[in-house]
Amino acid sequence: MTKILRVKMTKLEMCEENAAEKYSLLGGRGLTSKIISEEVDPKCQPLGKYNKIVIAPGLLTGTSAPCSGRLSFGGKSPLTGTIKEANAGGTASQKIAKLGYKAIIIEGMPEQSNLYVLKINFGGAQIVEANELRGLGTYDTVKALRDKYGNNYSVICIGPAGENKLLAASIAVTNMEGQPSRHAGRGGLGAVLGSKGIKAIIAVDDGQDQIAYANEKEFKEQAKSLAKSLVETKQVMTMYGTSCLVNIVNSLKGLPTYNFRRGDFEGAEKISGESLKRKIEERNGKTGHPCHPGCVIRCSNVYNDEKGEYITSGLEYETIALTGSNCGIDDLDVIAKIDRFCDDFGIDTMDTGVSIGILMEFGMLNFGDTNGVFKLLNEIKLLTPLGRVLGCGADITGKVFGISRVPTVKGQAISAYDPRTLKGTGITYATSPMGADHTAGVCLPGKVGYREETKDSSKINYAGGDKKQVALSSDLQVMISVCDSLGICIMVGVSPNMMEVFAALMNKRFGLSVNGKDLIKLGQDMLLTEISFNRAASTNNSTKDDLPEFFREEKLEPNGNVFDVLVSDMGEVFNFSPENSY
Amino acid sequence: MTKILRVKMTKLEMCEENAAEKYSLLGGRGLTSKIISEEVDPKCQPLGKYNKIVIAPGLLTGTSAPCSGRLSFGGKSPLTGTIKEANAGGTASQKIAKLGYKAIIIEGMPEQSNLYVLKINFGGAQIVEANELRGLGTYDTVKALRDKYGNNYSVICIGPAGENKLLAASIAVTNMEGQPSRHAGRGGLGAVLGSKGIKAIIAVDDGQDQIAYANEKEFKEQAKSLAKSLVETKQVMTMYGTSCLVNIVNSLKGLPTYNFRRGDFEGAEKISGESLKRKIEERNGKTGHPCHPGCVIRCSNVYNDEKGEYITSGLEYETIALTGSNCGIDDLDVIAKIDRFCDDFGIDTMDTGVSIGILMEFGMLNFGDTNGVFKLLNEIKLLTPLGRVLGCGADITGKVFGISRVPTVKGQAISAYDPRTLKGTGITYATSPMGADHTAGVCLPGKVGYREETKDSSKINYAGGDKKQVALSSDLQVMISVCDSLGICIMVGVSPNMMEVFAALMNKRFGLSVNGKDLIKLGQDMLLTEISFNRAASTNNSTKDDLPEFFREEKLEPNGNVFDVLVSDMGEVFNFSPENSY
Repeated sequence: MTKILRVKMTKLEMCEENAAEKYSLLGGRGLTSKIISEEVDPKCQPLGKYNKIVIAPGLLTGTSAPCSGRLSFGGKSPLTGTIKEANAGGTASQKIAKLGYKAIIIEGMPEQSNLYVLKINFGGAQIVEANELRGLGTYDTVKALRDKYGNNYSVICIGPAGENKLLAASIAVTNMEGQPSRHAGRGGLGAVLGSKGIKAIIAVDDGQDQIAYANEKEFKEQAKSLAKSLVETKQVMTMYGTSCLVNIVNSLKGLPTYNFRRGDFEGAEKISGESLKRKIEERNGKTGHPCHPGCVIRCSNVYNDEKGEYITSGLEYETIALTGSNCGIDDLDVIAKIDRFCDDFGIDTMDTGVSIGILMEFGMLNFGDTNGVFKLLNEIKLLTPLGRVLGCGADITGKVFGISRVPTVKGQAISAYDPRTLKGTGITYATSPMGADHTAGVCLPGKVGYREETKDSSKINYAGGDKKQVALSSDLQVMISVCDSLGICIMVGVSPNMMEVFAALMNKRFGLSVNGKDLIKLGQDMLLTEISFNRAASTNNSTKDDLPEFFREEKLEPNGNVFDVLVSDMGEVFNFSPENSY
Repeated sequence: MTKILRVKMTKLEMCEENAAEKYSLLGGRGLTSKIISEEVDPKCQPLGKYNKIVIAPGLLTGTSAPCSGRLSFGGKSPLTGTIKEANAGGTASQKIAKLGYKAIIIEGMPEQSNLYVLKINFGGAQIVEANELRGLGTYDTVKALRDKYGNNYSVICIGPAGENKLLAASIAVTNMEGQPSRHAGRGGLGAVLGSKGIKAIIAVDDGQDQIAYANEKEFKEQAKSLAKSLVETKQVMTMYGTSCLVNIVNSLKGLPTYNFRRGDFEGAEKISGESLKRKIEERNGKTGHPCHPGCVIRCSNVYNDEKGEYITSGLEYETIALTGSNCGIDDLDVIAKIDRFCDDFGIDTMDTGVSIGILMEFGMLNFGDTNGVFKLLNEIKLLTPLGRVLGCGADITGKVFGISRVPTVKGQAISAYDPRTLKGTGITYATSPMGADHTAGVCLPGKVGYREETKDSSKINYAGGDKKQVALSSDLQVMISVCDSLGICIMVGVSPNMMEVFAALMNKRFGLSVNGKDLIKLGQDMLLTEISFNRAASTNNSTKDDLPEFFREEKLEPNGNVFDVLVSDMGEVFNFSPENSY
């Protein structure tokens, strides 16, 4: 993993570069954010020729470290106007890593409006014209590509949303069964890929594995030990997947319901992880489903319809809450179909769910109107003006329909935790350089932080203790940045102890002698790089390090909470001075 | 003019305050921007309860100074996210001034979704519930209000666009015939008024004139002398109105044509000021039409249809170019109907014209397709999703339809001068705290600036001399700010000499001894206040002070110009150090 593949779409040329020495300890998000901040003018138009998209496996991707197969996509986001990284599971990352690529940089813009496939294998890379894929959903795209090139290829692709530059367009990555169900969903990076004329990237590791180890034996032992501990401690996740959170967050009164009007949902039980598991088992679906080889947590699932026919894979908590309770929908079959539609069209389920909730708030349809929701999905599919608005996400939908209760930060929909109840999560939404994001540092009860006061967040009063919540958000944002750089799925659970485990793996892979503190520093540096890009990118509309006013003004039912963390306190999130250290 | 009327919509209360001493030399935009910057959180939601709208006549409004009847509206713009001032002619400003009001501040937000009329006369002010006006166009609104309250009232009102919080909603002000044809069009301030539940403000000066003079006789002599010189020098404007610019800008190759693809239009002659005058005269319309008493330039007009029936009033250059040549339309009747529709619906003609041009660029309809345009206007009228998108202006339209050639700055459509040819105007677009704006400092040939190098801009090479263009833009932005503060229409033509004339009027009105240089300082301070608000409105410290990429990338036909002014040079626009002084 020492090469960078640079794909120049203006002239349809490519070159391979040796990665600069300064990039040696950067991977995943750390590398995408670094390259974007060095090579992209922060003020460029996100869908113009000066933006780039960088695709990078993590530093441990391709190894036997468990859950290390995440793939980072980075660029300037057309949705938020900020720097953006979104990562996904699936099988592509490990193949790209094993081919020896640290990153793929796609830049420029083709002069013709052709579509292309970027094909990568041991023999090198090729840009292949692929206009026959125009307008295909991700499922048909994958089918066409695997029919043509073989099932060994992993596929990264966009759907019609990305081709049409809808601002909430996602990037799909195939899972172990070849379904395009793992998505880099956030920030509209699918539109950036679309603006470059790239419909798909396909990769197969059909040659000598390029992963090297300083001490392979010890690495594998360490990896095995981590895998064992994850298998033991993550059983709930294996059983229920991320949807185990439905009941938990509902009981905390933080489950987005009726466009964030309530924190609990009378239909929560029907869309809970327990119900999901039961339904999946009745229909010969699958729980405990890994999205890439080496995942031992296996939080994914395969959801079938009543006849046992596949609907979707990886029905996740965020999708369930934001297209479910947030829209007053308590039917998992409906939610699964929404998920399938979004995956196929190549659009973020989260911004879509929140956008639909806004139209319900507006009164175009009632909360819980499933037929109305399917009609809206059809509008998206047909790319009608209404469908395009929805496809541009919650912020644009709110503006077009004159709604002020719009749960977004920096133009991106808030994820499925009401910040009035989960204040630390609200701080993360407000301050993350990524805009409101479910993977940037959700603060749930548990032993998580690395500062003294955050080590046991279950002791933190969720209705108060704001400075502790700021510290907790900070710690989590940093540690999650480390995961994102290593290519490790955040489902492993970040903690100070986990940082030491990661450090040990890094040492045995790269012959280093780093510790958890060094990794923390790496995460902090990455965040500061991203913030610095955002400062330079700033336009008036796109950056506000606070939540929308209604979270501060309107009491959440039923607990009466408001978000009352001081902006000045939140300003301390990225104060990484020694007294806030690991 | 010493009172401030504060209207608190949350509780439907009002109070009168004595204007603070620090406001004594502030009026119009100077006062709206000062109050907004002091009272409004720069980070507030523009359509939320923490934004305010400030309405202020100029410092010379209500006097006999010619062309001094402009009315400023200020607030945080929902379109640009910046501080915003838009001003309009019409008769309301003089009445408000004569009633003794320096400003009306409207704040808060009603708890019910009722509509209200704010009624102001010598006896005081009243908030009157007026739900019967819901959904009415501005023409019907005015008719209903004048039927009820009498024709002596001037009306300030919004149309359905403002009620529905469309981001390009305007505020209409009635002219001398009672037509709501003078618009504070830019920045979506109509949506802010709508968010406050205010459908209309009506004012009559039915008591003792509150305008006082330090030396009335000398003031009137000075005013008379200015009027005389304007009558003599502005004959072209009186004959043709602002549309005299069509042929001028077309011959300079700066007329927006086909969504800013060309700088000249084969149909220019048909939509020129000369054609407009001929048509108006044939149909018993009116040229040389004043929009308020005391206007001696009289650049407005009354445009009738073939049967001699009134269509619209004040058909202006910006509307003609942006809904005409920019959309490939060469028919003044069509343009007049678009203008009437926009005035009636309460929406900015400029952002609307540019939005339609973007849909033509997208391919929804062809350039020049007048039937297609009328269909689009009907979509706006029916508030369909497509209509709402258009009503939210060019920036949102471009995003929803995935178009990157979108001529906007800070979210607001560029006005009718291609910045590749008129580079100084491009600098104003890029740097004005108001976003791209036709009243912020358009740089045309002529003797205009106050610095040595800008005194004769006809000598400036429009394809070069960038630093001179920066200086020229700066000088104009400052001097226009002075006009906007005094309530003087910028059609008088700003120049160093005019600043001295203004100073003399100010001295005789207020018993001061200021000169042009002092006024320049006033204008500079206002701009710096606005820029400071904008900095705070963005979390980060920079705003994007540049034009969209295509102006730098794509050669303008037929002259091959690109916009090539360095961002670093533009950074000097607001450098008001002594060496750049008057």
